[in-house]
Amino acid sequence: MSTTSQDVLDRVERERQDYLEELEEYLRIPSISTDPAFKDDVLRCAGFVVDLMKDAGLEARLIDSAHGGYPLVYGEWSGAPGKPTILFYGHYDVQPADPIELWEHPPFEPAVVGDRIYARGATDDKGQSFAHLKAVAAMLAERGSLPINVKFIIEGEEESGGETIDHFVSEDAGELLACDAVFISDSAMYAPGQPSLIYGLKGLAYMEIKVTGPNRDLHSGSFGGAVTNPLNALAQIVGQLRDAKTGRILIPGFYDDVLEIEDWERSEFAAFDFDEEAYRGELGVPELFGEEGYTTLERTWVRPTCDVNGIFGGYAGHGAKTVLPAWGGAKVSMRLVPDQDLEKIERLFTEYVQSIAPQGVEVEVTSHHGGQPVLLATEGPVVDAAMAAMEDIWQRPVRVREGGSIPIVSTFSSVLGVPILLLGFGLSDDCLHSPNEKLDLGNFYGGIRAVVRLLDRLATTQVS
Amino acid sequence: MSTTSQDVLDRVERERQDYLEELEEYLRIPSISTDPAFKDDVLRCAGFVVDLMKDAGLEARLIDSAHGGYPLVYGEWSGAPGKPTILFYGHYDVQPADPIELWEHPPFEPAVVGDRIYARGATDDKGQSFAHLKAVAAMLAERGSLPINVKFIIEGEEESGGETIDHFVSEDAGELLACDAVFISDSAMYAPGQPSLIYGLKGLAYMEIKVTGPNRDLHSGSFGGAVTNPLNALAQIVGQLRDAKTGRILIPGFYDDVLEIEDWERSEFAAFDFDEEAYRGELGVPELFGEEGYTTLERTWVRPTCDVNGIFGGYAGHGAKTVLPAWGGAKVSMRLVPDQDLEKIERLFTEYVQSIAPQGVEVEVTSHHGGQPVLLATEGPVVDAAMAAMEDIWQRPVRVREGGSIPIVSTFSSVLGVPILLLGFGLSDDCLHSPNEKLDLGNFYGGIRAVVRLLDRLATTQVS
Repeated sequence: MSTTSQDVLDRVERERQDYLEELEEYLRIPSISTDPAFKDDVLRCAGFVVDLMKDAGLEARLIDSAHGGYPLVYGEWSGAPGKPTILFYGHYDVQPADPIELWEHPPFEPAVVGDRIYARGATDDKGQSFAHLKAVAAMLAERGSLPINVKFIIEGEEESGGETIDHFVSEDAGELLACDAVFISDSAMYAPGQPSLIYGLKGLAYMEIKVTGPNRDLHSGSFGGAVTNPLNALAQIVGQLRDAKTGRILIPGFYDDVLEIEDWERSEFAAFDFDEEAYRGELGVPELFGEEGYTTLERTWVRPTCDVNGIFGGYAGHGAKTVLPAWGGAKVSMRLVPDQDLEKIERLFTEYVQSIAPQGVEVEVTSHHGGQPVLLATEGPVVDAAMAAMEDIWQRPVRVREGGSIPIVSTFSSVLGVPILLLGFGLSDDCLHSPNEKLDLGNFYGGIRAVVRLLDRLATTQVS
Repeated sequence: MSTTSQDVLDRVERERQDYLEELEEYLRIPSISTDPAFKDDVLRCAGFVVDLMKDAGLEARLIDSAHGGYPLVYGEWSGAPGKPTILFYGHYDVQPADPIELWEHPPFEPAVVGDRIYARGATDDKGQSFAHLKAVAAMLAERGSLPINVKFIIEGEEESGGETIDHFVSEDAGELLACDAVFISDSAMYAPGQPSLIYGLKGLAYMEIKVTGPNRDLHSGSFGGAVTNPLNALAQIVGQLRDAKTGRILIPGFYDDVLEIEDWERSEFAAFDFDEEAYRGELGVPELFGEEGYTTLERTWVRPTCDVNGIFGGYAGHGAKTVLPAWGGAKVSMRLVPDQDLEKIERLFTEYVQSIAPQGVEVEVTSHHGGQPVLLATEGPVVDAAMAAMEDIWQRPVRVREGGSIPIVSTFSSVLGVPILLLGFGLSDDCLHSPNEKLDLGNFYGGIRAVVRLLDRLATTQVS
């Protein structure tokens, strides 16, 4: 036991370069779970993580998906009976890399430039999750034991909405995964040097609309005017999802279950040092725009959204093709907030789209996957220990909510019934899901050190 | 001179197979003018047409584009001084073949199945234009001379909106191309066995909209709600081009110069044997839909249209990607009718799109190319001779208008000041611009015979 963890922190300092090289090896695996072409790479990546855990001194194994998905990687060290158990969650899969031509370095050839490492998955979530594992590895290497018990569950379908982990956690019912807290780093700090505790996550409803018209592509001159053009119809449908003037989503009933922002949230958020003009400039937009009556932070953290993720149909090549296309489609996702319900929103979306479908075409709506929104604890002994561990490295975390979705969090919350700590080491300019994703190495090493401190702090915490 | 042309028609009958094999050779050249990847093929195709003309007994040559485009092919036979001169127009370029996976035979490997030939360009326009040339070739082979003078001008940019021929005709000012009539077969008959004289063509305004938001693709969770999503904005713009309920185009001023349908047109069209239910069934749409107050024929022939030809942006691959894309675009074309003006419509479109552009994005509108609408003569000695020649083979053509655009026709009309005869050999199910384009061989040979008859008939026609 250590009140400063200096022994382990010294080792972390000595072994910086080794950790970086291991991380690079991890980032070289193109574990894109949403694209079947990368199946072998995703599976190889799972095996790589098992080996990482074994090398760290954990008992580790693959847990095959009971539903045809990618395996979970499970690891544990349980040599501290009577002490708390913490479960670390992460994911070893990554987003697709396209548009690949916009990367300054190839997405799967990690490049260290200055104090940053660039690669797909650097921050989301290989780099952050790897920091947990290295903290445990360093402590076991230095001391031969840990002050508390640890478990790891690393999934391979986070970026593709696979339900393997959700089914596993629900069916396991907290047996294998029984713990006193879950620790997840798959998010960004509020600002460089200012960590944040995320106590609210949005849910996600991801829909696809397909509009079908004639049974073949037609000459737009010969047939234009006689039939509904599926792309005109698609645009009419998609264009009616959100009011361009108020920023409100137009699906009837969409806001019925939305929890209004509380006064303490509004005032805490308003006190943050948030520079709208710098934010706008960094994104390169002519102006920020969103739902009327809310600030930018409130829009992204507390209010539900509806974004077109992709739209496609007809001719997209060089020059002009005078075609009246047979079909078109769009991918549309909605970020949900408490107490919206995923299934209800999927139903309302589908009914609304069908109700506004123009005459003369067939409209099909399908659901890709989703997750429920969640609100988490903002106080208690485990939360306090984690806040203190972060403060040991940086400063005390601020309490924030987050526009992103981590579908498994609501399942953990309901099945395990323990505090869930969302404390990330990323930054808002990490370009996750975009070209040139990166992780600041200062945050990578800081994350390792924070988890080292967390383990030592939890050893003396009365968790319940 | 022949009142029946039997000598030449007999030769055409004997040489059917040779003509077919030559046509197949022509169709094998993928002369896709809109895609720079096919540049060598387009140029090779121009040379092929020169050789065809020389083999037929014409003086033929390439006329290089003065504007960096593809060359024109010019051919003539002027051995009948004092007799009329007819100018045949056609194009040797073709549409792109995508979506290529829907072709039952490869698009550039012509397949004769029963009484049809399948290939890209079979009807549009290689097959039809080639019929003109073979009629002249057969007559010259049989008689050693023609009863009138002929000229050919075959261009290579019809499908890509290139302006080489337009500039050439305008600058030539009717010197080289001086003639008594222009004959064009780049259209369909009204029905099998029922030819049609097209006396009205639509113009074309082909626009592209690009909507740009953030300077990179963003995570739709982290940034959703804070900025205008370019794809939501694009759909809102495109969705407001046409009223989904009335079928009316919503661009202010769009209809200002539209000539209303005349009573004689309405009654002639209404008398046609047009089976709406069969037409609907053949297109595979749940119902026909178009501008209120007009029949399907009127919508396609007499009323202007606005069709989305392509829409694109964000993620279009497998599964789900939670991206808020940096940009999106759409190709939108409008078919114009007399007396709409191309430049005015392009301006109205651009102003309207800018006026409805949502906040928070940049919208750019560009114009690809276009053509003016045109109305042509429906009577006179040349029209009569052509109608009679068609009647010799099939029956008397009906007078129709057409939704398609042949931009050069309005230029011919204004520069040459002579009747322009639009008499096609295609059929409405030829799938031009679609997979599995075809030409009925009966119409191919019928077209050759009709042109043979036209030449003999014009020899005794007082053209002016």
